[in-house]
Amino acid sequence: MRLADMTDIAFRILILAGSTPDQLLRIDTIIAVYDLPRGTVKKVVTGLTQAGFLTAQRGRSGGLLLASAPDEINLGQVTRAVEPDFGLVECMRKGNTCAITAPCKLKSPLRAAQQAFLATLDAYTLADILLEPHHFPSLE
Amino acid sequence: MRLADMTDIAFRILILAGSTPDQLLRIDTIIAVYDLPRGTVKKVVTGLTQAGFLTAQRGRSGGLLLASAPDEINLGQVTRAVEPDFGLVECMRKGNTCAITAPCKLKSPLRAAQQAFLATLDAYTLADILLEPHHFPSLE
Repeated sequence: MRLADMTDIAFRILILAGSTPDQLLRIDTIIAVYDLPRGTVKKVVTGLTQAGFLTAQRGRSGGLLLASAPDEINLGQVTRAVEPDFGLVECMRKGNTCAITAPCKLKSPLRAAQQAFLATLDAYTLADILLEPHHFPSLE
Repeated sequence: MRLADMTDIAFRILILAGSTPDQLLRIDTIIAVYDLPRGTVKKVVTGLTQAGFLTAQRGRSGGLLLASAPDEINLGQVTRAVEPDFGLVECMRKGNTCAITAPCKLKSPLRAAQQAFLATLDAYTLADILLEPHHFPSLE
């Protein structure tokens, strides 16, 4: 049972942005702190910006900041917005070839379990999981 | 958000075994119905037998049958027993290199969400998701 790496990285970026509210967050800082590939970081930042969790300030002195207060950024909402794959089992995904897809009754319990998973995350906001700036290595 | 393929296949095998209670289920039948590789089916059957969900009767006329009544086989228990990977994000897995692992507060909400997922499946048994024999293609 895994979340996609994109969702994992999205949480890391939001935690870093929310834990260092006095500075604009730069892509290079995210890369240095988490030792992640530039392409991956850019892709996740684009997703978080398009979903309205981050705001980008352009220019040489630009960077990223949270688009809302940390206690208004809900962890369930973040997961729904950035997780690219809610296909728990094959029949919930493209390319499904399972022979009993049409009559199968497993999808209903699995969807209920997935809703319970997200509803639990709905009870938390980014404010609940912020850290202190000194917790991040390589932070200038 | 995905379950491992092994868990997906374990559910398919239990559904087939429980939906055809009047016959011993053979490995070849599972392979024919679901068009799955023999090695994968054998591995999952071994796991389900060791976990006490299936009983194997050996010999030429042998095969598999449910070890308990369908309404005593809980979907949450099956998932806990067969899912090989509950590492939702990197820090819950081996080989983790995330730089904020020690102080990070994300693990707690994610573990709570995972518990809610499994607790929801605990409300269902195999009896809730059985089918009719005619729903399985290639079934002799």
